[in-house]
Amino acid sequence: MTSAPSVSSSITTRLEVEARPTAVSELTTAIERAGGIVTALDVTSSAHERITVDVTCATRGEEHAKEIVDALRALPGVVVDRVSDRTFLLHLGGKLSIESKVPLRTRDDLSMVYTPGVARVCEAIAAHPEDARRLTIKRNTVAVVTDGTAVLGLGNLGPLAALPVMEGKAVLFKRFAGIDAFPIALDTTDVDRIVDTVVAIAPVFAGINLEDISAPRCFEIERRLRERLDIPVFHDDQHGTAIVVVAALTNALRVVGKQLPDVRILLSGAGAAGTAVLKLLLAAGARDVVVADVDGVVHAARPGLAHELVWTAEHTNPRGVTGTLVGALAGMDVFIGVSAPDVLTGDDVATMAPDSIVFALANPRPEVDPVDAAKHAAVVGTGRSDFANQINNVLAFPGVFRGLLDARSHRITESMLLAAARALASTVTDDELNATYIVPSVFHPDVTTVVAAAVEKAARDDT
Amino acid sequence: MTSAPSVSSSITTRLEVEARPTAVSELTTAIERAGGIVTALDVTSSAHERITVDVTCATRGEEHAKEIVDALRALPGVVVDRVSDRTFLLHLGGKLSIESKVPLRTRDDLSMVYTPGVARVCEAIAAHPEDARRLTIKRNTVAVVTDGTAVLGLGNLGPLAALPVMEGKAVLFKRFAGIDAFPIALDTTDVDRIVDTVVAIAPVFAGINLEDISAPRCFEIERRLRERLDIPVFHDDQHGTAIVVVAALTNALRVVGKQLPDVRILLSGAGAAGTAVLKLLLAAGARDVVVADVDGVVHAARPGLAHELVWTAEHTNPRGVTGTLVGALAGMDVFIGVSAPDVLTGDDVATMAPDSIVFALANPRPEVDPVDAAKHAAVVGTGRSDFANQINNVLAFPGVFRGLLDARSHRITESMLLAAARALASTVTDDELNATYIVPSVFHPDVTTVVAAAVEKAARDDT
Repeated sequence: MTSAPSVSSSITTRLEVEARPTAVSELTTAIERAGGIVTALDVTSSAHERITVDVTCATRGEEHAKEIVDALRALPGVVVDRVSDRTFLLHLGGKLSIESKVPLRTRDDLSMVYTPGVARVCEAIAAHPEDARRLTIKRNTVAVVTDGTAVLGLGNLGPLAALPVMEGKAVLFKRFAGIDAFPIALDTTDVDRIVDTVVAIAPVFAGINLEDISAPRCFEIERRLRERLDIPVFHDDQHGTAIVVVAALTNALRVVGKQLPDVRILLSGAGAAGTAVLKLLLAAGARDVVVADVDGVVHAARPGLAHELVWTAEHTNPRGVTGTLVGALAGMDVFIGVSAPDVLTGDDVATMAPDSIVFALANPRPEVDPVDAAKHAAVVGTGRSDFANQINNVLAFPGVFRGLLDARSHRITESMLLAAARALASTVTDDELNATYIVPSVFHPDVTTVVAAAVEKAARDDT
Repeated sequence: MTSAPSVSSSITTRLEVEARPTAVSELTTAIERAGGIVTALDVTSSAHERITVDVTCATRGEEHAKEIVDALRALPGVVVDRVSDRTFLLHLGGKLSIESKVPLRTRDDLSMVYTPGVARVCEAIAAHPEDARRLTIKRNTVAVVTDGTAVLGLGNLGPLAALPVMEGKAVLFKRFAGIDAFPIALDTTDVDRIVDTVVAIAPVFAGINLEDISAPRCFEIERRLRERLDIPVFHDDQHGTAIVVVAALTNALRVVGKQLPDVRILLSGAGAAGTAVLKLLLAAGARDVVVADVDGVVHAARPGLAHELVWTAEHTNPRGVTGTLVGALAGMDVFIGVSAPDVLTGDDVATMAPDSIVFALANPRPEVDPVDAAKHAAVVGTGRSDFANQINNVLAFPGVFRGLLDARSHRITESMLLAAARALASTVTDDELNATYIVPSVFHPDVTTVVAAAVEKAARDDT
C-alpha cells in the first residue's frame, strides 16, 4: 500500500522567482513531478524582475517534503525563502481557548460575576448541590483524560506529548456536540494515582472521557472510576470504537442481506478496542464470534492463556476453532481487525464466505490492503479518510456525551452504547445505503443529534 | 455601617399595569420609597388598557428585594408576573466556555487538527518537551485550584459551591490578562491528596493559582507544590493581597510624606493574608511591624503562642509591645486589617499618630467603619467597591501571571512579588495621587501590562 500525499503533511513554501511568463508553471510542474499536490498558490509581491510566490502542497510526509523543496531549489532562478509546515502552524499556541460567557465592562458587572454578588450563588449551591448543574459550567463540561501511555498508534509518549491529541479531541467535542471539553494529561501512570486524581477533580465535570490509556490498565481505571463517581466515565478507545463498529456492521449486513445472529465473525485484536467491540457485538445479538490475538485464536484450552482472556474464551468461539488467524478466516462472513498492520493478504480474504465483510481498522496501516480486500469482499471499511467507509470514533463520542449530559446521567450502560450504535446506523437511509456508504460522513449534519437523542432516551429509561 | 443597594443584588420584575399617565411614575416612586434604586425600565408591550413593564432595580439583598416586590404588589392595578435575580440569571449555564481556536470545516481540517496530522506534533513534543509551550495550550493556561474550604468569607462550602468563584476568577484572568484559566475544584480536603492531585494534573498548565484554601493548610500545600512542580504556584489570598497592600501603602505614604522604614505598622490578622502581607512588608523595608490576632499582640512571651506564630514573633515587634489590638494602636502610623469586622471604632483610630493610614480590608464588613475612620486618619482604604481606595486583588494577579507566563518562569519568588507591588504603585502618577486615589481602578488600562512587565523582568533576572 503506497500512501497518497496528504493535507495533514502539507507545507507552504515562500519562493522568490524570476518574473517571466513560465515562472509559475515551472514551480507547479516541479512539485507535481516530485509527487506533491499543489493546493494553493499566491503571488504575494511583485517587482520588475522578481516575484514572490507562496505555494502550498500536500506531501507524503517529512522526507517527501524535503524532496519537493529540493526539487524547487534546483530550478534555475528560484530562491527558497521559507518552508512552513501547515499542521505545525495550526498548532502554534495550542488549539483551545477559555472564554468568558459574561460581560465584564464595569464595576457593576464585576459585582455580579465576582464578589460580592457571586457569594449568593455559592450559598445557593451549598444549600442545593444539584444546582451546580444549573449555575456553573458543570452542566456542559467534560474532562478528556489521558496518561499519555498509548498516544494514537505511537505508544507511551507521556502526558505533554499527548496534549495535542487531547486538545484535538476537545475541538471535536465543541465542533460536533457543543460540549466544553478540557484536556487533563496526567503526570503519572500509576493506576491508584490516576483513579484518585480523577475522583478529586471530578466536581467541575459532568462526564469523563478516558483517552489513549494503555491496556490492560485502562480496564481497571474505568471500572474503579465508574464505582467511585456519580458522572459517566467512557473510554473512547473502547466504547467509541465498539459503537461505530457495531453500527457499520449493522449497515454492512443490510447491504449483503445477512443477519447478525447468523453470521460468523472473526475479530482480530483482544486489547482495549477488541474487548469492547466483542462485548457490544454480543449485546447486539452476535452468536458466533471468534477472537484472535498475536498468539492465534483464543480458546479455553490455549496453552498459557492470559488471565484477562478467560472471559473471552468462555463467551466466544462456539464451534471450538483453534489455530492461526489466517486459518480461522476461511468461511467467515465478517472480519473485524482492531490489531496490527498487514496480518492478512487479499488471497486470505478470498477464503471467506461469499458476500464477506472486512473492517481493517489498524491505523494508519490496516490489517489488509483495502484495495486488495475489495477484490474479494463485498464491503470493506478502514479507519482511514482516503478510502470509502471510514469507521471513525468521531461518529460516536460527541453524540454519546451530548445525550449523557442532556439526560444529566450519572452513569453509562451497555444499553446506552447499543442505543448509540443503532441510532448511528439509522442515519444511513435505505436510499443512501450501498457497499461504499455504510456509515455517514463525520460532517453529516444529523449524526450528533440522532445519536444524542437515542442515548438521552436510553439514559432516562435506565433510571 | 448601613449597606447601600447594590447592583450585585438587583432584580428585574415584570409587571402588568393599567395604562394611565401616572402608571410608570407610580412604580418608580414605590421602588424608591422602599429603598431600591431603579436602574432600567422598559415597556415591553402595550394594549389599550394595560401595559407590560420590566423594571430593574438594585436592592440591599434578598429580604429587601422581597419588600420591594411587596410594595409593587400593593399598588392598585399592578400585577407582578415574574421576578428574576440578575446575578442568578447571569450565572445560568456557568460563566466560561471552551472554544476551538482552529477551523474544523472539512476533512482536510480534521486531518491537521486530529489524526493523522497531529501525530507529528506529538512526536515533536516527545522529542523536545519544552516545545509543549509552543505547540499546546500550556503556554497560556493556568489552573485556579480550590478545595472549597474558605470560600470568600463564607467558610467551608465544598468544591461545588466554590465553583462560581473559581469561574469568576477565570473570567477575570481572561478579561484583564488574556490568560486561559480553568477551575479545578477538588473533592478532597486532605493535604497529601491535594498536593498529589495538583502535581498529577500539572502538565497542561503553565501556572497554578491557589484560591480559597483555609489556613494553615494553604501554607503547606503551597510549599510542597512549589517543591514538586516546575511551574509557579501562587496562593492569591496570600500574595495577591500582599502585593496590593504594599502597593497601596507605598502610595499612601507618598500622600502623607512618610517613609516605610520609619513608620510604625499594626497588622491585625495572622492568617493566610496577614502572614503574606507581613513578609512582603518586611521585604519592602518595613522595620517596625506589630502583629495582632484574636488573642492580642503577638510576642515571643505570649502564653500558649501557636507554633505557626513563632516566626512572626521573632521577626516583628522590635519595641516589645504587648496587650490588646486596641491598646497597641495608640501612636501607630499605619493600621492594616486583614482579620474580622468591627474590631476598631473611630475613637480608636483617633489614638493613632498624626497623618495616620487605615486599611480595613475585612469584607464585606471592614475592621472599622471607613466613614468613622476617615474622621481621624489621613488615608483610608477598604476592600469594598463603594468606598474610595478599593484594595482589590484584581489589581495584582492578572499582571503577575501574565508576567510569569511571558517569562516562561518555573517559579515565583519574593523579588517578583515586590516588583509587582512597586509596579502597581507606579501606575498612580504624582499628578493623580491623593488621599482618595492611592490605587488605580481595576479597569485602568495599564495596570496589567505594567505589573506584567515588572514581573517578567524580575523573573528573567532571577534565572
